[in-house]
Amino acid sequence: MNVNRQDRPVLGIDLGGTKILAAVVDPDGKVLSRSKRKTKSEKGPADVLDRMAACAREAVEEAGLQMSDIASAGVGAPGPLDPIRGIIIDTPNLKFVDVHLKDELESRISVPVFVDNDVNVGTYGELVYGAARGVQDVIGLFVGTGLGGGVIINGRLHHGFSLNGGELGHMILDPDGPVCGCGNRGCLEAFSSRTAIQREIEFAIRAGKSSIIHELVKGDMSQITSSVLKKAFEANDPVVEKVLKTACEYLGIAVGSLLNILSPEVVVLGGGVVEALPELFVKQVRKKAFKIAFPICCKNVRVVASELGDDAVILGAAALGRERLAEAN
Amino acid sequence: MNVNRQDRPVLGIDLGGTKILAAVVDPDGKVLSRSKRKTKSEKGPADVLDRMAACAREAVEEAGLQMSDIASAGVGAPGPLDPIRGIIIDTPNLKFVDVHLKDELESRISVPVFVDNDVNVGTYGELVYGAARGVQDVIGLFVGTGLGGGVIINGRLHHGFSLNGGELGHMILDPDGPVCGCGNRGCLEAFSSRTAIQREIEFAIRAGKSSIIHELVKGDMSQITSSVLKKAFEANDPVVEKVLKTACEYLGIAVGSLLNILSPEVVVLGGGVVEALPELFVKQVRKKAFKIAFPICCKNVRVVASELGDDAVILGAAALGRERLAEAN
Repeated sequence: MNVNRQDRPVLGIDLGGTKILAAVVDPDGKVLSRSKRKTKSEKGPADVLDRMAACAREAVEEAGLQMSDIASAGVGAPGPLDPIRGIIIDTPNLKFVDVHLKDELESRISVPVFVDNDVNVGTYGELVYGAARGVQDVIGLFVGTGLGGGVIINGRLHHGFSLNGGELGHMILDPDGPVCGCGNRGCLEAFSSRTAIQREIEFAIRAGKSSIIHELVKGDMSQITSSVLKKAFEANDPVVEKVLKTACEYLGIAVGSLLNILSPEVVVLGGGVVEALPELFVKQVRKKAFKIAFPICCKNVRVVASELGDDAVILGAAALGRERLAEAN
Repeated sequence: MNVNRQDRPVLGIDLGGTKILAAVVDPDGKVLSRSKRKTKSEKGPADVLDRMAACAREAVEEAGLQMSDIASAGVGAPGPLDPIRGIIIDTPNLKFVDVHLKDELESRISVPVFVDNDVNVGTYGELVYGAARGVQDVIGLFVGTGLGGGVIINGRLHHGFSLNGGELGHMILDPDGPVCGCGNRGCLEAFSSRTAIQREIEFAIRAGKSSIIHELVKGDMSQITSSVLKKAFEANDPVVEKVLKTACEYLGIAVGSLLNILSPEVVVLGGGVVEALPELFVKQVRKKAFKIAFPICCKNVRVVASELGDDAVILGAAALGRERLAEAN
């Protein structure tokens, strides 16, 4: 291991469906600078890669550094992907097929690049710098448009045989449940993602239930964001309260099963919806999960909200870049 | 590592609710001798421990050896337990509470003893000597009175923070499903164990469905053993066929979720019910699981029947005893 390189700052990059975030991060997890670009995935992979490189260079300049000062870069990207070779296999979000992200980005920014699934990277961020610091066995569940999961076992991200394990959002909680984006019925994602929450609120309003949501989004149900949910919940809107509690209930069932299966020490709940209402989610999910799981699998287990919020992926990516470089040397 | 000790035979012991099995096993997994005792757990832990020691000594004599020829002993025991300190914490099966199995047995047979959960040990047996030889990521599911699971990650048994993870039988597959022995509703065990299968057959017969089961067990429904199920299935009994296919369906749903969560390379199905009808279980479970899981988590994955059958625990215990001794040295 090259100790000097380990002392140098790294780049953490979050490749999202709509935006690219880059940050220069020092060894203590302090963000020295940030940069942002639109993804514009419709322009194709080469253009997105150029944009990632430009975003990375901007962050480095912003920190008053040169690219040669940077030890490595970590990238959180949508999967499925090959985290060893750094290849995006086929992602519906970006319409990328077989994109050699690691090689292509390395040739553009001339630092070693390491890639992993964005939700894995977010969970890893919480392990290294956030709510699960110092813990060996962690699961992360991130509630947004979809519902993503990450699994850490003995302090390391779990990938499994396919290199694409940890898909906690697609555990089946009820084979007769609502249809999920993946085509199955009753996945966790189909019960507890923001998309599922929006769907249930729409159903209730169409069925004639009274809710302030309609007013808050001026009739446009696609505008039910996390902050709208928070407003409605805090105004004691009965529809939103009931729908959110049901979402928490199913998330709690999933966590209960996962406590029995994986037996983590810490369960980190994150993503936009949880960040808007962390106390509700943590309390309800913990209650349900602890009711389900064996007492021995609940003992001293913590269910906590993400500490890093929107920074989980860039910080996790930075930590991953640092870690994998050390392993490669 | 003491190479001489590694060449020596080990004891594998299966501590069950009704019987104790012991075997002397050579480094290639060949069983040199066997011995058997009734457990008689009602007589209390000290008596059971004496019986285990006697059973072990008998197996050693049977192999023409002395206890000093034995490198170590592995024990598969019902949990929850502490596999590091070898303590049975509290097992309903044996009514053992806080029994220091490792220490107590070591003082009786004077060889190093290593203990783990019986289903973990069975899965480990399949890894070392059976259907999952040479594989790094494995799950084992054993269908009997209950439904137990074991998880192997990177070639090692996964215990998690509580040391008692891998409880795959208590994943919830439907929160409104049948009541499970654990108190929850809709656990895998409540759908696919032999107990659940018996319950569903009884329901169907009571509801007036025609089945040869009644005749096969002479009206005593508690006698629906795995071999009775096999006979009825092979005679195309419609009730048994439907109930078994439903059990396979739910087991397939669980395996589908587990492929997404853990991403094993091999899924081993075992236990009395599967051993009676291995082709049915393997075919149906694979079909359902592969329909559910992401294609990338199914690619090159094998769903297979246990190869070791009743010997899975003694062989796994022997392998574990050998492995942990090597690590301890």
